[in-house]
Amino acid sequence: MAGNSFGKLFKITTAGESHGPANIVIIDGVPAGIPLDISDIQPDLDRRRPGQSALTTPRQETDTPEILSGVFNGETTGVPLTILIQNRDQHSQDYNNISDKYRPGHADYTYDQKYGRRDHRGGGRSSARETVARVAAGAVAKKLLSYYGEKINVVGYVKQVGNIIASIPDPSKIKLNDVEANQVRCPDPIAAKKMIHLIQSIREEGDSVGGIAEIVATNVPTGLGEPVFDKLKADLGKSMFSLPAVMGVEFGLGFAAATAHGSEANDVFKKRGDKIVTRTNNHGGILGGISSGMPIIIRCAVKPTSSILKKQSTVTKSGKRTSITVKGRHDPCLLPRFIPIAEAMVAITLADHYLRMRTYREVK
Amino acid sequence: MAGNSFGKLFKITTAGESHGPANIVIIDGVPAGIPLDISDIQPDLDRRRPGQSALTTPRQETDTPEILSGVFNGETTGVPLTILIQNRDQHSQDYNNISDKYRPGHADYTYDQKYGRRDHRGGGRSSARETVARVAAGAVAKKLLSYYGEKINVVGYVKQVGNIIASIPDPSKIKLNDVEANQVRCPDPIAAKKMIHLIQSIREEGDSVGGIAEIVATNVPTGLGEPVFDKLKADLGKSMFSLPAVMGVEFGLGFAAATAHGSEANDVFKKRGDKIVTRTNNHGGILGGISSGMPIIIRCAVKPTSSILKKQSTVTKSGKRTSITVKGRHDPCLLPRFIPIAEAMVAITLADHYLRMRTYREVK
Amino acid sequence: MAGNSFGKLFKITTAGESHGPANIVIIDGVPAGIPLDISDIQPDLDRRRPGQSALTTPRQETDTPEILSGVFNGETTGVPLTILIQNRDQHSQDYNNISDKYRPGHADYTYDQKYGRRDHRGGGRSSARETVARVAAGAVAKKLLSYYGEKINVVGYVKQVGNIIASIPDPSKIKLNDVEANQVRCPDPIAAKKMIHLIQSIREEGDSVGGIAEIVATNVPTGLGEPVFDKLKADLGKSMFSLPAVMGVEFGLGFAAATAHGSEANDVFKKRGDKIVTRTNNHGGILGGISSGMPIIIRCAVKPTSSILKKQSTVTKSGKRTSITVKGRHDPCLLPRFIPIAEAMVAITLADHYLRMRTYREVK
Amino acid sequence: MAGNSFGKLFKITTAGESHGPANIVIIDGVPAGIPLDISDIQPDLDRRRPGQSALTTPRQETDTPEILSGVFNGETTGVPLTILIQNRDQHSQDYNNISDKYRPGHADYTYDQKYGRRDHRGGGRSSARETVARVAAGAVAKKLLSYYGEKINVVGYVKQVGNIIASIPDPSKIKLNDVEANQVRCPDPIAAKKMIHLIQSIREEGDSVGGIAEIVATNVPTGLGEPVFDKLKADLGKSMFSLPAVMGVEFGLGFAAATAHGSEANDVFKKRGDKIVTRTNNHGGILGGISSGMPIIIRCAVKPTSSILKKQSTVTKSGKRTSITVKGRHDPCLLPRFIPIAEAMVAITLADHYLRMRTYREVK
Repeated sequence: MAGNSFGKLFKITTAGESHGPANIVIIDGVPAGIPLDISDIQPDLDRRRPGQSALTTPRQETDTPEILSGVFNGETTGVPLTILIQNRDQHSQDYNNISDKYRPGHADYTYDQKYGRRDHRGGGRSSARETVARVAAGAVAKKLLSYYGEKINVVGYVKQVGNIIASIPDPSKIKLNDVEANQVRCPDPIAAKKMIHLIQSIREEGDSVGGIAEIVATNVPTGLGEPVFDKLKADLGKSMFSLPAVMGVEFGLGFAAATAHGSEANDVFKKRGDKIVTRTNNHGGILGGISSGMPIIIRCAVKPTSSILKKQSTVTKSGKRTSITVKGRHDPCLLPRFIPIAEAMVAITLADHYLRMRTYREVK
Repeated sequence: MAGNSFGKLFKITTAGESHGPANIVIIDGVPAGIPLDISDIQPDLDRRRPGQSALTTPRQETDTPEILSGVFNGETTGVPLTILIQNRDQHSQDYNNISDKYRPGHADYTYDQKYGRRDHRGGGRSSARETVARVAAGAVAKKLLSYYGEKINVVGYVKQVGNIIASIPDPSKIKLNDVEANQVRCPDPIAAKKMIHLIQSIREEGDSVGGIAEIVATNVPTGLGEPVFDKLKADLGKSMFSLPAVMGVEFGLGFAAATAHGSEANDVFKKRGDKIVTRTNNHGGILGGISSGMPIIIRCAVKPTSSILKKQSTVTKSGKRTSITVKGRHDPCLLPRFIPIAEAMVAITLADHYLRMRTYREVK
Repeated sequence: MAGNSFGKLFKITTAGESHGPANIVIIDGVPAGIPLDISDIQPDLDRRRPGQSALTTPRQETDTPEILSGVFNGETTGVPLTILIQNRDQHSQDYNNISDKYRPGHADYTYDQKYGRRDHRGGGRSSARETVARVAAGAVAKKLLSYYGEKINVVGYVKQVGNIIASIPDPSKIKLNDVEANQVRCPDPIAAKKMIHLIQSIREEGDSVGGIAEIVATNVPTGLGEPVFDKLKADLGKSMFSLPAVMGVEFGLGFAAATAHGSEANDVFKKRGDKIVTRTNNHGGILGGISSGMPIIIRCAVKPTSSILKKQSTVTKSGKRTSITVKGRHDPCLLPRFIPIAEAMVAITLADHYLRMRTYREVK
Repeated sequence: MAGNSFGKLFKITTAGESHGPANIVIIDGVPAGIPLDISDIQPDLDRRRPGQSALTTPRQETDTPEILSGVFNGETTGVPLTILIQNRDQHSQDYNNISDKYRPGHADYTYDQKYGRRDHRGGGRSSARETVARVAAGAVAKKLLSYYGEKINVVGYVKQVGNIIASIPDPSKIKLNDVEANQVRCPDPIAAKKMIHLIQSIREEGDSVGGIAEIVATNVPTGLGEPVFDKLKADLGKSMFSLPAVMGVEFGLGFAAATAHGSEANDVFKKRGDKIVTRTNNHGGILGGISSGMPIIIRCAVKPTSSILKKQSTVTKSGKRTSITVKGRHDPCLLPRFIPIAEAMVAITLADHYLRMRTYREVK
């Protein structure tokens, strides 16, 4: 009810604040028998980690996961999995000067209104630090998806930063290696170079810039998703909008559908081998809320980082006019570190619906 | 689990198929003491009703709601409310010729894959007919929202059809009357005229066209929404993506945030009277997942109707190549009837979070 | 949240009041492909029906179920099932004289406190009339359980009325026919005769009497139930305590365990054929919250009907001392009609956990 | 879904195994502003702690709770609370000799059937060790209940061990001090002495004995509980049956209701001061599933400890006949340590329904 759980059969519950002792996730519903150890979790935490490159905040966190339950003899046991990540490199004093001021674009004001208090040290629970627990859970979801027959694969990359748009001829062909080939996580090397240059110049200005991430899921079997409210699109949409800074989400043709005609937007069915597929993929892999077997294509618009070094006008808690200069240590562009986080939520949502789908299969 | 419920404190469960006897919604969690009768529900059903204008399908449904439980002496009693809407004007035989063919852009194929069967008569549960139950529930949600102090108001309108874009200087000023002033539900009368003309010419071609709906919620108190997974944006996003034909959803600045800088996208706080507000509303009324008190601005991209009169290529259930001409009776553009449906889901989501918010208030 | 839903994968939501137009249940999660029509539902409604024998209330209800969704061509389709049962023989005026008085043993006072109002006509939602929807859902659950391989069977009977205790040498051997052999639903014919006599004499006194029901589930596979909170015992216990008038619930040895020693209460494992079983069944079919494969044995203590013809002391809504004589039409002993209701809740709970169990099975 | 969460508005999720690194609970839904530190949690952990007296297992655990999230400046913040309790004094090797044998009365066999594996070291997740997380959450629930106006109080005690029954003239008068006055947690000092003697002699025999716990909640306002499925009785019943070793649960008159007549079992309403109360409390504080304002009286039958030193017959995993002698370190009678655990679950359930009740109150 208070919103810290997600999923039904693969269900995660997270807790932890930016400057508290740790972030924690309990994953309930992982089937028994899946091989798992921390080496399955660390790589995505490293991709999310602050301080990983010149493009990101210099906050240093090793983000080493500890598995506290749910694994015995190197395999999941069917009981809930707990992963704990300690917080270490906190500079709480950086926030003392703003403990009474509302940072523009942040949740300071709304948390204060909701709870009658807020944890000013890095935003407390409203900080993107909480996504570390999602990434840990996402790594388990990816492991689960790769364990079963279809081997569903989830990969994300930066599609756009400011006005620089990557050219991705076939999203379903992008591999993790292509994404990790550069700091900005854009598989188009020419665009990547421009993006890096743009982000560096934005940082020098003390400003920030937004962008678009594209996440692609391949090898998705048909039949994931429920009719009506728990459409796969609805749950993926929710998972993306649950991430900090997301202002828009679209599937397949997306907003371009507004100007399309049915005769061109409809994807025609055809047979390929013994499978029924569509010739085009305007629908983005989901029809009637249920996966069609075609690649799932999601795009998220991510706003520019709210914390900027430039001086901004704002008010104090009591409503007095003031100005604010956010110190802290922040990314000038959220996109590179957004990729593993978005992948995690897509993997978690697909793992949940994958397990839900299995409930439909006949038991002979 | 099977996806036919939505909401936590204001919780709706719907059932019914396009060509079955009725559509039904049970609403659990309506507080006692709210005046309610069918005159509160009929108007929105009339706005959604097929056959209401020359722009929509000629299927005729009176869509008269029956309240079967939850109201006594003209007021809600606190126990679950049931509303039933009978289906009457079904032409099931229209679908006989396609019982074995997959309509492009429809859920025929995915339902067949999921359930091993499908109800070809108008799509069964995958038909947009199911939204009649949502609109009934949405009318109750609107009544609830208008009953409490803040009087949250939800209004939607057509922002774009094909390439025609309405000019809406201030979304928070649009009233229901402005929307209902024309058949296309666009409060910009000049754009409305062009949209009507476009839709009529598209219909003559046997084709369909997409568009964009904008839904605005005003008088929203601060504090609606939960941190992390049940952010207000996440639940509104889910509610929109749970609607048929929605390909994209954005809040406030939306996809335009991709090219924005932090220094321009951040909404600066200021005091207005005894309230803290933001000078601009790029954030679209939600910060950190929690309502800020500013108007909530949502836009949905709606694809062109999948059912078109033009002949299309497809396959049969066994994968044989064939062609299909969808008879049935369909809207050439979904947007005008999409408005009350989208409003309903926004109202339902806000009613749920409004009740959730009340759990945070102190009891003295 | 408001408590009108039960179950997770086989999930029922009910609505309806004693003197409203109808009682309704939506069942979400019934897998596709199970043959179903109203002849599967009517028999249990008949067993629950008022007016079925001299031992029950003379209220006359045909209780004919209408299936409004979820079945196509005689089989379930995977989308939600709606069953509606109209209320017909209501004598609302019987309750006019008590509209301001709190009936002892009833929910009049607590509903008034909770909702600030109550439906005095037969108790509204607090009336046992609501169980008609449970019995309809229970019939679907029984059908589901009988459809799958193990053919789980649920049968209940009256074990005790007042001081008369039935002798049931082997609960797992009792068949529906044994139960339906007499009006009181006690498979021990000698005890049954005494029970009938007792109930008739109690009715003549204008009084009521309590008793104990025993419900037995056989052919239950091992593995139903979850660790910790959703133990099968916990969910069955909840389902029983959700029924009107239940004051106690026990499994297997039950309260007799208080005086037992471990060396005698522990059920020893042994091999029978290729199955592992226990020699005795003190545990009542559930170990560590998970079904062991042995018969599940549940007993419920049911209080005497609260509505009695004898004059009782009470207070009015404003707290004024008064006396009350409940007219209405009531059963002098709830037990005979309690049996199909308790069976329904056990079947619903087992259907839910049966579907949950299937999620653990490997997909090859 | 996998059963490791409980509650809706006060929602706990637990994880951890007997011989894993730690037990953890995340509590979602604790309102902001409640003073809390580990001194609120330690006392109940101490009451539950193994090795606390000569009557319990000598396993030594300090059970020191760490609060990892949800508290800032000594008060709850509204975001989820995490409490971690490390496991220290594990003797995993004690279980090596039984890794292939099914202990009678234990979950070894059912876990193996459900998951295809089990953690033989102390039972893993099926061990009562998991209740340490419940007790920590229960302490928070008690704090919450004592924080709000009504100051709901929950106290439990041992009512019966074997054939020794305590005399408790008025359950609502028992205070924590009375309970903690002796090792066996029975507030009748004469019975307590006999119980201690009995348990000691049972231990010497290498056997175990069962008993009955009584838990009483006072100062409960009217209006807690929902109609139909989430009756307060249903949720309390579920919470009790979710505890290890519980074979029966009853409220108020309980199983004695079976032999009662309506004219004597009905509790007559009367006015006391400005409150409406009942003269007797046969109903045990809950009418129609909703609290009446009278004390809630619950009794649980607890079976004798399954782990006994006596040699028992059983089978191996492959079904071979063998015998077993359980080493480990076990309580000869579960009752004394069951008391804080049962109190915890009652407090958690009441905290959940207390928060749910607040959603019904009018906001002016």
